[in-house]
Amino acid sequence: MNKVSRIHCKALQSKIMTAEEAAALISSGDNVGMSGFTGSGYPKAVPLALAKRIETANSAGEKFRIGVWTGASTAPELDGALAKVDGVEMRLPYQSDPTCRKRINAGEMEYIDIHLSHVAQFVWFGFLGKLNIAVVEVAGILEDGRLIPSSSIGNNKTWLEQADKVILEVNSWQDSRLEGMHDIYYGTNLPPNRQPIPMVHPHDRIGDPYLHCDPDKVIAIIETYSPDRNSDFSAPDEKSRLIAGHILEFLEHEVKRGRLPKNLLPLQSGVGNIANAVMAGLNHGPFENMTAYTEVLQDGMLELLHSGKLVSASATAFSLSDKALVQLYAHLDEYKDKIILRPQEISNHPEIIRRLGVIAMNGMIEADIYGNVNSTHVMGSAIMNGIGGSGDFARNAYISIFMTPSQAKDGQVSCIVPMVSHVDHTEHDVQILVTEQGLADLRGLSPTQRAKVIIENCAHPNFKPALRDYHKRALEHSFGKHTPHLLDEALSWHQRYLTTGQM
Amino acid sequence: MNKVSRIHCKALQSKIMTAEEAAALISSGDNVGMSGFTGSGYPKAVPLALAKRIETANSAGEKFRIGVWTGASTAPELDGALAKVDGVEMRLPYQSDPTCRKRINAGEMEYIDIHLSHVAQFVWFGFLGKLNIAVVEVAGILEDGRLIPSSSIGNNKTWLEQADKVILEVNSWQDSRLEGMHDIYYGTNLPPNRQPIPMVHPHDRIGDPYLHCDPDKVIAIIETYSPDRNSDFSAPDEKSRLIAGHILEFLEHEVKRGRLPKNLLPLQSGVGNIANAVMAGLNHGPFENMTAYTEVLQDGMLELLHSGKLVSASATAFSLSDKALVQLYAHLDEYKDKIILRPQEISNHPEIIRRLGVIAMNGMIEADIYGNVNSTHVMGSAIMNGIGGSGDFARNAYISIFMTPSQAKDGQVSCIVPMVSHVDHTEHDVQILVTEQGLADLRGLSPTQRAKVIIENCAHPNFKPALRDYHKRALEHSFGKHTPHLLDEALSWHQRYLTTGQM
Ligand SMILES: CC(C)(COP(=O)(O)OP(=O)(O)OC[C@H]1O[C@@H](n2cnc3c(N)ncnc32)[C@H](O)[C@@H]1OP(=O)(O)O)[C@@H](O)C(=O)NCCC(=O)NCCS
Ligand SMILES: CC(C)(COP(=O)(O)OP(=O)(O)OC[C@H]1O[C@@H](n2cnc3c(N)ncnc32)[C@H](O)[C@@H]1OP(=O)(O)O)[C@@H](O)C(=O)NCCC(=O)NCCS
Repeated sequence: MNKVSRIHCKALQSKIMTAEEAAALISSGDNVGMSGFTGSGYPKAVPLALAKRIETANSAGEKFRIGVWTGASTAPELDGALAKVDGVEMRLPYQSDPTCRKRINAGEMEYIDIHLSHVAQFVWFGFLGKLNIAVVEVAGILEDGRLIPSSSIGNNKTWLEQADKVILEVNSWQDSRLEGMHDIYYGTNLPPNRQPIPMVHPHDRIGDPYLHCDPDKVIAIIETYSPDRNSDFSAPDEKSRLIAGHILEFLEHEVKRGRLPKNLLPLQSGVGNIANAVMAGLNHGPFENMTAYTEVLQDGMLELLHSGKLVSASATAFSLSDKALVQLYAHLDEYKDKIILRPQEISNHPEIIRRLGVIAMNGMIEADIYGNVNSTHVMGSAIMNGIGGSGDFARNAYISIFMTPSQAKDGQVSCIVPMVSHVDHTEHDVQILVTEQGLADLRGLSPTQRAKVIIENCAHPNFKPALRDYHKRALEHSFGKHTPHLLDEALSWHQRYLTTGQM
Repeated sequence: MNKVSRIHCKALQSKIMTAEEAAALISSGDNVGMSGFTGSGYPKAVPLALAKRIETANSAGEKFRIGVWTGASTAPELDGALAKVDGVEMRLPYQSDPTCRKRINAGEMEYIDIHLSHVAQFVWFGFLGKLNIAVVEVAGILEDGRLIPSSSIGNNKTWLEQADKVILEVNSWQDSRLEGMHDIYYGTNLPPNRQPIPMVHPHDRIGDPYLHCDPDKVIAIIETYSPDRNSDFSAPDEKSRLIAGHILEFLEHEVKRGRLPKNLLPLQSGVGNIANAVMAGLNHGPFENMTAYTEVLQDGMLELLHSGKLVSASATAFSLSDKALVQLYAHLDEYKDKIILRPQEISNHPEIIRRLGVIAMNGMIEADIYGNVNSTHVMGSAIMNGIGGSGDFARNAYISIFMTPSQAKDGQVSCIVPMVSHVDHTEHDVQILVTEQGLADLRGLSPTQRAKVIIENCAHPNFKPALRDYHKRALEHSFGKHTPHLLDEALSWHQRYLTTGQM
């Protein structure tokens, strides 16, 4: 590792310091915009040093807490470390960290769950208060001060522009060949001065490969050599394979019916094992020349690029296993002009998602018999992760698919319920539901027609009779019969789980 | 009235017939795309004749039912007449007719409630099945067969293009000076061939003033002279005036803070008395040179155009009282280049709404203490109207405002509840809630912080103690404390109303 070689801007070299020194420049009460998206491109040193500082302050009886704003989820060294020392007053817009989650669900940390495409503009609009400091990981600094982004973009452009002060972590673990892969769109504006975003294909480059940052705002530079968190994917299990199979069959059917082109439309795929299994399925499926316009590039998509089935992939972040990372870097020259990383306000922009006609595939916690989807809350009150980009994609997609195993918690919980305990995606935004049991195509169906298809095709046999019974009795006794419900029973399945451990 | 003068196309004159003859060309099982949006521009003769035909068929024991697709709500001569004779198998995407609503809530009519911006594209995608016949009101036919649209556009472009057969109603009651006011965008396309929509100001004209229609598809033309339904607005009552006052104060505050330009941003305003009161308020407010990018042009907006406060208004339909209509036509030349009527896929397009930075103001049935909004379902099961364009606007707005009186049903019902009985707009899509009690600004607040502001600022004093008590106990006993809920109590207010007539 050659420490200096990554910082080519003379004026900035003088600002190199230790993470501890940099952390000392952050004050209690600051809102801090950190880089990081699904475990990649987050700062690895300053948050840890800051956590130590907070711990010291706390033991001295001084309350030290900050607001943490990111792209999306980060890693134990950031969310985990800061949550552990109770250093986070307010977290937004997405997290998936166990310690963080625990604090939020204990009522010890405020959390705002925001559509990922809304975050940058809300900050620009001044809706979330002042951003004081940005802490952003980059892969290098050019002579003229422009920044080579690292393995995620997220909200970095906005943080660098909106914060008064900037701390940079230059991570030489990030492959220097990432340079040129990014596309930072600098054409955004505030209403009433916005213009159309000039993108018509998922692989269009409309911006600059570098992040811009006023050098005068940079108050510290820290050099690191530290790996991204990375995600480990288990090999697709039986249920994931079944779900992937149903989706492939459906897509083939849509192509046959002339409702989708032979190479499909740009794919968006949520994070997790099921999403990965769907990608694996597509690798053995009949579709060629596919494209992806998605949030996160996971292992499965890399495989598709490798096999040539996928001709290009646009995302805002990598989220790769160690194995896939080795593959990425072994063949980087081959992938380089096929992969584009963009700011999340562009990767998730309603304008682009709708224009391109994306096929959106996302995981969920539960769906109800009328097609409402809960992506975020366990038993209606405990946050799992957040809505992330699922709303950006589902609402604006060509077709929006949600998927889950039909049961959770070792079969004690049905993921198809009479009424979801929290709604993230309304009946208006959900066209297809899939479980290992089968696929429900909700297009053109009224709520009651949907209920029949969802129960029969998606529910687990253990819960089918009770769901049928609920719907039948609701049809008889509901106040209104458009979306029949028995309000004193609608959430009783969840309540029963809380009381007895079983739905 | 000069009957022939409106049909200048020779080839089409031979297709003139009676409404009864035209209705005979519609078959049971047909999906019929009708014009009509919030009581304007709907066909006035054929649906009535069809209803008679259905009644006769029904009394002869032949089941005769059709699918009715429209822009949005229509009028008694369409929705009312067809629902009365039980002639509608499936209705979409929006209705507000009492007879229709009754059938739907009795489980006698299927109804699909769809985001208004989704409808045209879903038909193009083939998601809703085949459209067999279009029945479209126009204000006249040019020599070359192009059509002068009437007082609403809605989905007419799509119906005329997608249906195999077309029936036109040429209504000479519609003022011939409407010609030139419309802007039909013919640049839409299917993915992967979509292009940016070239609109950057609410008053940009990007299309053609006429609707195109293959003359060979026209199977019947009916001449009518028949008024639109029109809406009557009551003078703003005390509660509406208070709501309007809170919104005005809020907007002034935002301008002062630099978060809104002095002339605001393009206004979207839902239908109904409260919306009208807000417009009346703006007419006496400090803002000049305002613009509107909305779905429906109501009385209040016309007043704003008249006073010069509003410089232009873009919508897909008029929804005016008789009095306002007189005013419109008395000053049509003055309004003509200030008003633009567009297809609803453009008036409600996420791309445009987000680009322009619309201020969205919509009515609601109820909100919960965490900021979820129900726009459609009474007591979770009975449909009122539908989501209409509220989701298109709320999700993509610069700022999204929802408003309601704090109580309904003579004070027996609280419009602020522990948990909404149906969700149309999630916590992620709602920034401001307003009742006559006050305004809750939810930006940058976590669920629990929101609960405090909503209860204290918006709930009626009669229900405040019970809401505070629920939230307090939920904070103590909830499974998760991110969005604290007691699942066995969350919907008990609604259940109590159903059982006792009182929440
Ligand atoms: C919904 C979501 C949590 C599913 O994640 P996943 O990894 O596919 O699902 P898993 O089956 O591993 O479930 C995750 C957890 O939720 C729990 N869970 C799943 N379904 C549940 C249900 N119906 N009731 C209660 N708990 C449930 C699981 O038990 C597991 O909890 P555990 O780790 O404590 O055992 C995830 O997709 C998500 O966060 N989505 C929202 C954001 C999003 O869609 N982003 C996409 C990018 S655009
Ligand atoms: C929500 C909506 C129904 C409110 O309409 P409104 O005319 O402002 O409201 P009203 O106070 O007159 O209420 C309408 C009805 O709902 C009932 N209602 C209102 N709040 C209620 C509540 N919390 N519980 C039960 N019923 C309620 C009223 O009693 C009234 O019913 P009634 O006619 O049988 O007495 C209306 O705005 C709507 O349909 N919105 C969805 C579509 C939309 O937003 N379009 C905007 C265009 S983009």
